[in-house]
Amino acid sequence: MINYTEQIAAKLHQLKETGGYRYFLDVNKSAQHFPNFYFEDVTGVKRKAINWCSNDYLAMSVNEAVIGKLSFVAHRSGAGSGGTRNISGTTNYHRILENTLAKLHQKTASLLFGSAYLANLTALSTLGKILPELVFISDENNHASIIEGNKASGSQKLIFKHNDIIDLEKCLQSLPIDQPKIIVFESVYSMSGTIAPIVDIVLLAKKYQALTYIDEVHAVGLYGEKGGGLTELLHIQQGVDIINGTLAKGFGVLGGYIAGDKTIIDAIRSFGAGFIFTTSLPPAICAAANTSIELLQSNPSIGEQYHQSIQKFREVLIAHAISFHPNQTHITIIPIGDEIICKKISDSLLFEYGIYIQPINYPTVKKGAACLRITLTAKHSQADMVYLAISLQEVLKNISVKQPVKNYKNVLA
Amino acid sequence: MINYTEQIAAKLHQLKETGGYRYFLDVNKSAQHFPNFYFEDVTGVKRKAINWCSNDYLAMSVNEAVIGKLSFVAHRSGAGSGGTRNISGTTNYHRILENTLAKLHQKTASLLFGSAYLANLTALSTLGKILPELVFISDENNHASIIEGNKASGSQKLIFKHNDIIDLEKCLQSLPIDQPKIIVFESVYSMSGTIAPIVDIVLLAKKYQALTYIDEVHAVGLYGEKGGGLTELLHIQQGVDIINGTLAKGFGVLGGYIAGDKTIIDAIRSFGAGFIFTTSLPPAICAAANTSIELLQSNPSIGEQYHQSIQKFREVLIAHAISFHPNQTHITIIPIGDEIICKKISDSLLFEYGIYIQPINYPTVKKGAACLRITLTAKHSQADMVYLAISLQEVLKNISVKQPVKNYKNVLA
Repeated sequence: MINYTEQIAAKLHQLKETGGYRYFLDVNKSAQHFPNFYFEDVTGVKRKAINWCSNDYLAMSVNEAVIGKLSFVAHRSGAGSGGTRNISGTTNYHRILENTLAKLHQKTASLLFGSAYLANLTALSTLGKILPELVFISDENNHASIIEGNKASGSQKLIFKHNDIIDLEKCLQSLPIDQPKIIVFESVYSMSGTIAPIVDIVLLAKKYQALTYIDEVHAVGLYGEKGGGLTELLHIQQGVDIINGTLAKGFGVLGGYIAGDKTIIDAIRSFGAGFIFTTSLPPAICAAANTSIELLQSNPSIGEQYHQSIQKFREVLIAHAISFHPNQTHITIIPIGDEIICKKISDSLLFEYGIYIQPINYPTVKKGAACLRITLTAKHSQADMVYLAISLQEVLKNISVKQPVKNYKNVLA
Repeated sequence: MINYTEQIAAKLHQLKETGGYRYFLDVNKSAQHFPNFYFEDVTGVKRKAINWCSNDYLAMSVNEAVIGKLSFVAHRSGAGSGGTRNISGTTNYHRILENTLAKLHQKTASLLFGSAYLANLTALSTLGKILPELVFISDENNHASIIEGNKASGSQKLIFKHNDIIDLEKCLQSLPIDQPKIIVFESVYSMSGTIAPIVDIVLLAKKYQALTYIDEVHAVGLYGEKGGGLTELLHIQQGVDIINGTLAKGFGVLGGYIAGDKTIIDAIRSFGAGFIFTTSLPPAICAAANTSIELLQSNPSIGEQYHQSIQKFREVLIAHAISFHPNQTHITIIPIGDEIICKKISDSLLFEYGIYIQPINYPTVKKGAACLRITLTAKHSQADMVYLAISLQEVLKNISVKQPVKNYKNVLA
């Protein structure tokens, strides 16, 4: 007899041996006390901790107006949409949100998906099908959803070194000038906090007649005067053909989207399986996301204060001699390396100090590149920051961790 | 210069010529008046219509307790989760719902996804990666998400004729007995209302040592004493290895899942990109879905009344000489054939009669197999049914449609 379970169990066993097996923490999330939350430890005792790894950067998920809108529209229009977009699942709330998103990115159209993962997967695979000669030129550190989208397209793929303009140009040069091609990259790489040389990439795209596709999921809501991401901050929205974003991080709700020229968007709407064959987002989710975007636009101080807090936070870390990767974003990476040590640090922080920082390990980062990824939110206080720094300093010392990166002073340069 | 937009516009032009181009109707969905809704016609006039194509079969999306729970938990825990399941995005509500779903299907574990589309895609592609020798044996009418999952797995594929046990056995016989293999099929095929010979398939799977994977998205909530779908109705839950379901149709909310043996589920949790790399469902959505499942279980009369209404509805159609595909499900298919005529009928029903039935065309069904897919919900009255039948009779006569199927009398046999 074929023993399927045994074969599958062997794969899980391998994963456990590498330290990459994941235990999910039950976060008893509280809108009132965010980023504080309760969890039950292994003995069943209820304990309090501070969440330092949420992507709810601006704490919009706990914004009263956003929650109020979600609740109001759920009462008005129901909990779910009840259909795919084509079959009774398009409401006025979907249309309004798509208009807002198109405007946010200064594009003529946008298209909603259940998630930014599905948006990347569907948009890229569909582009490959509509333009059968299209070659994907993709940054080596691109997100799993982009990799899956490239793969599902069935198209030829070239990979360039992370953020390396020279290597990108080599890829472009290797193709005939009249070969249809698309450069796919992210603005903020969420697991390293690195930023793409967007302007240089756009210039190369023009030179070699390539389409451009940028993933701005960790930037929308946070960068640019209107929250349009790094492409807005750099005034280069018109130079990028398709922008991918999320409603689930900076905007605090759920769902993903693409924005671009109306013909391209209409084609992905018309041919994309991951758009066509799935129930649309609930009207209440669309309304809440729309409220979140509008709120951030009418209250620029939320974003400004957040970026000031990031600076403060890094000063606190430096003052406590905590090394972190130098980057210009809101994502703070404490490199550790070994998966098992990283998990030990994380466990110690959670159970002894009430600080929750999920260890980041393979497949999210490469094997042996485990790290602590710390995300400040708009609701963390200065006291929270200091408490984190002191605790982290103690834990790193107790576990005798030699951090691989020493050049932390560069970060504020 | 490469003119990408022109190439893409040409594809859209082709689609328009076949009559397959889709115009989405803005449904101003009302929880109070469902299935009635408002929409604006092309002149901007607000008009009323009855939705006859929702998948919100049991009207759970407009159930007050479900909406109340959504609203309550949003106020308590926020609008979004703020993280992937591994990185601060697992809450007690996710865990509770996964327990409920495992129990619903009499399995030892379940796993939530943003949608059933993503659940199929991820589960199937991940199985193919974990078991590299696995051969997919797939019904030819399987949903797009299954096709994409099979494709993404990179595994060998065999397709058997729709619901054809003899052809399935041929596929099984063509493989060595010790070849790992999985039979992938649906319980209710949503665009035809056909039902798989589940018991026969399971018997063949045992005989040939194949795993089984069933998509029950159009059955969960509706069939079986506890709403566990056709596998529950047939008492065959233990015979099927993995069950895929949705929270967005019978349960009226959003999201999808798989249920199965805990080792298999743990492996998909641990290796599935479409699970790992995406923000988890909002806690409030999980809580609302859980309430919906529990409500249906404690009020079996909702389901019973619904199935009685289906019988009534078909009697009304027969009394008005409306032909429909004979099937034993809640999905009523009026075959039309030509895409352009089908759209004409649908437009006439909407604008002249206030009846909304979206035409179903390629790629949802084969080219030339356009149809009207009518779905009764728990909120349609007997008067609604009669009005629909009279209107449809008139429109079909006015447009001189000769319906391809005549054997409608079989349906109640």
